[in-house]
Amino acid sequence: MNKKMITYVLGILLITEGALLLLPTLIGLYYKEDVVPFLITIAATVVSGFVMTRFKPHDKTIVSMDGFAIVSLGWILISLFGALPFFISKEIPNYLDAVFEVVSGFTTTGSSILTDVEALSKEMLFWRSFTHWIGGMGALAFIMAILPLAKGGGNLQLMRAESPGPDVEKLVPKSKSTARILYGIYVIMTIVQILLLRCGGLPFFESVTLSFGTAGTGGFGIVNSSIADYSLYTQIIIGIFMMLFGINFNFYFLLFCGKLKTAFRNVEVKSYLGIMATSIILIALNIRHMFGSFFEALHQSAFQVSSVMTTTGYATTDFDKWPVFSKTVMLIVMCVGACAGSTGGGFKVSRIIILAKSAKRELKRLAHPRSVSVITMDGKRVSDEVVTGTNVFFFIYIVIFVVSLLIVSTDGQDMVTNISGVIATLNNIGPGLGKVGPTGNFSDFSWYSKVVFILNMLLGRLEIFPFLMLFTPKLKRSKKIK
Amino acid sequence: MNKKMITYVLGILLITEGALLLLPTLIGLYYKEDVVPFLITIAATVVSGFVMTRFKPHDKTIVSMDGFAIVSLGWILISLFGALPFFISKEIPNYLDAVFEVVSGFTTTGSSILTDVEALSKEMLFWRSFTHWIGGMGALAFIMAILPLAKGGGNLQLMRAESPGPDVEKLVPKSKSTARILYGIYVIMTIVQILLLRCGGLPFFESVTLSFGTAGTGGFGIVNSSIADYSLYTQIIIGIFMMLFGINFNFYFLLFCGKLKTAFRNVEVKSYLGIMATSIILIALNIRHMFGSFFEALHQSAFQVSSVMTTTGYATTDFDKWPVFSKTVMLIVMCVGACAGSTGGGFKVSRIIILAKSAKRELKRLAHPRSVSVITMDGKRVSDEVVTGTNVFFFIYIVIFVVSLLIVSTDGQDMVTNISGVIATLNNIGPGLGKVGPTGNFSDFSWYSKVVFILNMLLGRLEIFPFLMLFTPKLKRSKKIK
Repeated sequence: MNKKMITYVLGILLITEGALLLLPTLIGLYYKEDVVPFLITIAATVVSGFVMTRFKPHDKTIVSMDGFAIVSLGWILISLFGALPFFISKEIPNYLDAVFEVVSGFTTTGSSILTDVEALSKEMLFWRSFTHWIGGMGALAFIMAILPLAKGGGNLQLMRAESPGPDVEKLVPKSKSTARILYGIYVIMTIVQILLLRCGGLPFFESVTLSFGTAGTGGFGIVNSSIADYSLYTQIIIGIFMMLFGINFNFYFLLFCGKLKTAFRNVEVKSYLGIMATSIILIALNIRHMFGSFFEALHQSAFQVSSVMTTTGYATTDFDKWPVFSKTVMLIVMCVGACAGSTGGGFKVSRIIILAKSAKRELKRLAHPRSVSVITMDGKRVSDEVVTGTNVFFFIYIVIFVVSLLIVSTDGQDMVTNISGVIATLNNIGPGLGKVGPTGNFSDFSWYSKVVFILNMLLGRLEIFPFLMLFTPKLKRSKKIK
Repeated sequence: MNKKMITYVLGILLITEGALLLLPTLIGLYYKEDVVPFLITIAATVVSGFVMTRFKPHDKTIVSMDGFAIVSLGWILISLFGALPFFISKEIPNYLDAVFEVVSGFTTTGSSILTDVEALSKEMLFWRSFTHWIGGMGALAFIMAILPLAKGGGNLQLMRAESPGPDVEKLVPKSKSTARILYGIYVIMTIVQILLLRCGGLPFFESVTLSFGTAGTGGFGIVNSSIADYSLYTQIIIGIFMMLFGINFNFYFLLFCGKLKTAFRNVEVKSYLGIMATSIILIALNIRHMFGSFFEALHQSAFQVSSVMTTTGYATTDFDKWPVFSKTVMLIVMCVGACAGSTGGGFKVSRIIILAKSAKRELKRLAHPRSVSVITMDGKRVSDEVVTGTNVFFFIYIVIFVVSLLIVSTDGQDMVTNISGVIATLNNIGPGLGKVGPTGNFSDFSWYSKVVFILNMLLGRLEIFPFLMLFTPKLKRSKKIK
C-alpha cells in the first residue's frame, strides 16, 4: 500500500471539504446566525489537510487496494469532520448522533436521528442538504480531485472502486473530459430543478436545499413533514426529478453525445422504469380507498415509489399507514434500488438483471447439460467474472443485512422497524417502516445500533467491497480457500 | 421426454401409496373408527396406478428432465390422492385444505390449516404423521422403488434431482446397497426413538406418531399444544432426535463403515452443530428472565432451536412471545436449515459454507487480482459449476421468497406473519411467527395464498430446481441468454 499517497490524497480531500464549508458559513452570515462552529471546523479541517499534504509522495502510483482505502477512509474522514459544526453548535449535542447525521448526508441516505428538524438553524439545514449534493456524485467528485494526482493505471482502479454498480455498460469516465461532462450534467440538472421549483413560487432557500436532496438522492427535508405540506406542483417536480436522478448517467451521456438510439435501448433504464411503473400502479390500486380520487392515490403512490426506489427518501404521506401489501412492495423496491451509475443506492437494477440472466442460464444448463450460454447485456457480453462477482455481492449483501438485523434487534424495537431500518440504511434510502417510518427517526436506537446503521450507510454507498477490503486482513498467499 | 416411462413410474408410485394407506386403515380398525374413506382412497389410488402401469414402456431410459418430472409430479400426485381420506371423511371438509395438510405432511413441513388437531380421529392423526415419515426420506424411498425400473445413467440423474443439498460430499447412493444402508439407518433410528419414548411411559400411539414426525423432520403434533404438555424426558428425547435427524446421513454412513475420523472431520456437521449451539446459548441468555431457572431457559431454547433449524417444527413453548432478538435468531436459523443429505429442509448448511467460501475468494481476488484460488470442502475440490449453481440457487430462493411474500401480503395479515409464513413453508419448517406461530395456523389465509404456500412447500422439498424445471418451457436452442 502506498500509505504516503493515501495520506496525501486524504489531505487534499479535507482541504476541499474546508473550502466547501465556506458555503454554509456564507448562508449563516446571510441569515445572521452564529458561524463560529463553521469557522472552527474549517480551521480544523484545513489545518489537518495541510499537515497531511506536507510530505509530497515521490511515488504517485496507486493500485486498487490504495483506491479502496482512499474512498473508504475518505468518506469516513469527511464525515468525522463534517459532523463538527452540529456538535460544536450543540444543535446535535451528541457527537455520535452528529456523525450519524453527516454520514447519512454524505452517503445520500437521509436517515435522521433528529426528532425536530425545524429546530435547526438555516446554516445547519443548508449544510445537511449540501452534504447530500456533495455525496451524491461524490464518487466522481473525488475522482475529479484525485485524478490529476495519480499516475498509471491507478486511476481506473479508483474508479472501479467508486463507480456505483457492476461493470456492465457502467459509468466509466474514460478520461477527465468524460467525467467533466457527467459532472456538468449533474450540475445542470440540479440548476434546472432549482429554477423549476422557484418558478412554482418556492423560496430560494427551499428550492436549493430540496434540489440538493433530490440530486444526491438523499432525502433530508427541512421541515418535519418532509414534502407533504408543499404544493402539488412542487411535489410533482421533485417526484419527477427523483426518478430522473435514479437513471444511469450513462443514459444522459449518450443523449449528450447524440446517440439517442443506443440510449433508449438501454436495458437497465427500461427495467428500472418498468419496475417503477408496475409498483406505482399496484400500490395506487391498493391504496385507492384511502384517498379522495384515483388521481390522488396515483400521485401519492408515484411520489413515494419514486422516492424509495431511487433511495431518496422524501415523503408526501406516511406510507407506514398503508396496507401491508403496499408496504411490502415498498420494502422490495427499496432493496432493488436505482440504476447503476446513478446517484441512487440500493442493490441496483442492473445487478438484478445479471442475476436473473445467470439464473436463467443455470436452469437451461440443468435441462440441457451440454448447452453453452453466454450472458449478454445491451449487446455486450457479460464476463463470467462479473456474473460471479454479482452473485457473491448478493450473498454478502444478505449476510450484512442478517448480521446487522441481529445486532439491532437486541434493542428491543419491533421486527418491522428493525428490518426496514437496516434496509433503509444499507440501501441509502432514509426512512423505513414502523418507528423509523416517514414520520419517525432513528433516535430511539442504542449507540451500538447507531454505529451499525452508520456502517451500513457506508457499506451501501461504497458498494460493500471497497469498504470490506479496509477490514480484510492481508490474505495469505495460500492457493486454497479453507 | 420419455412420457411413457414417467407415467409408468408414477403409476408404480400410486400403487405403493395405496399399499402404505393400509397402515392407517389398520389403525382405524384397531380403534374401531370408520375406515371407509381409506378404503375408497386405496381403491382410487390402486386403480389409477394400475391404469398408468398398463402399457409397459419399451424404452426404460430416463434422462435428468424425466427424473425432475417424476419427482415433481410424483410428490403432487401422492398429495392429491393422499388428501382424499381427510376430504371424504369430512374431517377436513375443504379439499384444498386437505391437500395443504397432506403436502405439508409429505414435504415434512408440518404447517397446518387445522385449528383443532385433537378433533381428528386416530386413523387420520396417524396418516398425517405417517406422511412425514414417508416424505422424510421420500427422496430415497422413491429411488428405491424406481431404481429397478430404469436403465442407464438415468438413475443417477434421478438421484441428483432427489438428493437434498448441493453436490459436495453429498448423499449419493452409488448403488442399491448403499441406499439400503441409509434407509436402514433411518428405520433403525426411528425404532430407537419409539422405544426410548415408550421407556419414558409415552403410550405406543404417541410414541410412533411423534417419532414419525421427528424422523421426517416434519412436526405434526397430535395435540393442540404440540409437545409442551409432555414430560421433560419426552421433550429431551425428541429434542435430541430432531438434532440427530438434521445431520447429514453421510455422517452416519461413514460411522457405519467405521470411518470415524472422516465422519468427525465433516465440515458441514461441525458448522451445523456450531450454529445450533451458538443460537441456543444466545437465545437462552435472551429469554432467561422469562423462565424460573437458567436450565429451564436453556431447555426451552435448545428444543425450539433444534426444532426450527432441523425444520421439524415441534414446540414446547410459544416462541412468538419471546423478545425480538430471539425471534430474529429463530427466523435466521429457520432459513439456514439442516445439513444437506438429511431429512431436514431449509437453505442447507453446506450451501452457506460454499457461498461463504466463494465470497472469501472474491474478496481475495479483489485485493490480489492475479491470485488463483480453488474452493475445497472436506479436502475435496468444489467445482466452479457447483459454486455458480449454489449462488444461483440462492438468488432464485430469494426471488421465490419475495414473489410469495407479495402475493400472500394481499391477504392483509401483518408483515411478520407473512414473512415468517413464507419462510416456514419454503424451508419446510411448519410454524412461523405471529398468526402462524406455534399456537397459530394457516387457516386464515385465502385460497390463493394457500396455493402459494403449497407451492412453497413443494419447491422447498424438491430443492427448487427440479420443480421449476416442470414449469420451464422448452428453451430455445439459441446460445445467448437475452
